[in-house]
Amino acid sequence: MDIRTVACIGVGQIGRGWALLFASRGLETRLFDNDPGRLAQALEQMRASAGALVEAGLVADADAVVARLRVSGSLQEAVTGADYVQESIAEDVALKRALFEALDGLAPPSCILGSSTSEIAGSRFMERLRHPGRALVVHPVNPPYLIPVVELCPTARTDASTVARTEGFMRSLGQEPVLVRREISGFLLNRLQMAVINEALHLVGEGYCSAADVDRTLTHGLGLRWAFMGPFETGHLNSAQGYLDYVTKFEPLMRTMAADLAHAYPWTHGLAAAIDAECQARTPADRIPERQLWRDRRLMALRRHLDAQD
Amino acid sequence: MDIRTVACIGVGQIGRGWALLFASRGLETRLFDNDPGRLAQALEQMRASAGALVEAGLVADADAVVARLRVSGSLQEAVTGADYVQESIAEDVALKRALFEALDGLAPPSCILGSSTSEIAGSRFMERLRHPGRALVVHPVNPPYLIPVVELCPTARTDASTVARTEGFMRSLGQEPVLVRREISGFLLNRLQMAVINEALHLVGEGYCSAADVDRTLTHGLGLRWAFMGPFETGHLNSAQGYLDYVTKFEPLMRTMAADLAHAYPWTHGLAAAIDAECQARTPADRIPERQLWRDRRLMALRRHLDAQD
Repeated sequence: MDIRTVACIGVGQIGRGWALLFASRGLETRLFDNDPGRLAQALEQMRASAGALVEAGLVADADAVVARLRVSGSLQEAVTGADYVQESIAEDVALKRALFEALDGLAPPSCILGSSTSEIAGSRFMERLRHPGRALVVHPVNPPYLIPVVELCPTARTDASTVARTEGFMRSLGQEPVLVRREISGFLLNRLQMAVINEALHLVGEGYCSAADVDRTLTHGLGLRWAFMGPFETGHLNSAQGYLDYVTKFEPLMRTMAADLAHAYPWTHGLAAAIDAECQARTPADRIPERQLWRDRRLMALRRHLDAQD
Repeated sequence: MDIRTVACIGVGQIGRGWALLFASRGLETRLFDNDPGRLAQALEQMRASAGALVEAGLVADADAVVARLRVSGSLQEAVTGADYVQESIAEDVALKRALFEALDGLAPPSCILGSSTSEIAGSRFMERLRHPGRALVVHPVNPPYLIPVVELCPTARTDASTVARTEGFMRSLGQEPVLVRREISGFLLNRLQMAVINEALHLVGEGYCSAADVDRTLTHGLGLRWAFMGPFETGHLNSAQGYLDYVTKFEPLMRTMAADLAHAYPWTHGLAAAIDAECQARTPADRIPERQLWRDRRLMALRRHLDAQD
């Protein structure tokens, strides 16, 4: 792999997650943020996260990881000689455009410029660069050092070689890049997630079930498939002949059920408050930090389990 | 628990799954099927499945499980003195209506009559019984001895005590009952699943991504949450204040994205054939049986992993 030096611009939660991934895979990782205070704090937070990864058996040596993190004094210092830059600043198109123009001037022309944006089409801040061919959206799921999927979304002006290099780079880190061939809001993951959330709001909002029972239908039902087998493979393996045979058999049912799903369910604040009350009964707000630690432990344990399978 | 003797009527894949669950939890399990040939075959198939569960460390003694399976010579023999009957015959409303009328006459009035139907509203074959209060849909996910969620869907005439007893019975077996308060086609699980399939077909059909990349977005992304945390808890833990705060913050994005999702995406057979070609490239039809064994192994391993967590 030709990518050895990476720079993370913006060290909020997403930027820190990327930096930990890069550093835990042995890469020298430069950090820059407009806010020097946040930069100092970020190092402490990443040290703690690296420690948690060691405890979970996912990283061998926290000190070695932290030693690969280098705070840069300026944007220029961060990207000079870099092979790959990952932008993770605020979701503000004007800020991103200004940053990408600066990066375009400072980073070597062969350096890939990736954006973590989940909300803004890359074309809105990448296409007018001098070198638009080396810029694309590289959207992680938080935290990227535990959840491997990464959505690559090139603009119409991104070079095919940039996509291929980024794909190879991500694979070399152990990530699972997926390709969003044309810009679409929400990319793949957030659209698929929203499809579930929308129908879930409909089911609870119309009184068919509780929010807790939706969650249990995922955790004790659908999640037991989707943690290792996607919806297309599920269908493929449900017929001796494969996917086409499967959907031909279930076509009438599939069409009827799809037509019956809620479209843009108009949930109210009253519904959100009722769901909140259910969620608070399970986990009161003052115990959310504790439950977040539970979530992180469970995610690490699941990741370890999945990594051990063939 | 007051339920000790159960009868499984219909020993296709679903009926066999139920019988294995009941027997592996120590219950005397009577089996009946209109087709005596199928009944004989079913015992052999369940013996093999019990062996696989032992290999996976999920069952201690296969012989003890099989010894609890009793083939009945008639419907009457199967349900006389039974506390719980699980119907898993063909999805045909006339057949189900005839069977439930027969069961209603043969089974003691306190015996619960549960139907495995996934497609037919219980009200269409349960409401005209002499004792409609003891009948409800008890919809499993295949195979129920590995996937714990069970959807309970009472009709308007089902007694509340029947729902409560069935819920307690399912919990005593280690299942996770969820309550569908009013009849709705597809219940909860298949609707949530279809929401994902519908948007997945849209994304592939409109050329945004490959079918394989949809599957990977689930297996390396969303599935890593949903195997232990549902969509409502996910939102609740994404804010220090909880769910209401979370959705208030993301309301504009949620509404925009929900409105942008495909509604009843009109997929064509050409699209299904293209997805099939992708699936066949991953797993040719002649290797589907082998991949099904992989799927079953993975599911058993995941179940073992999840059972070991707190």
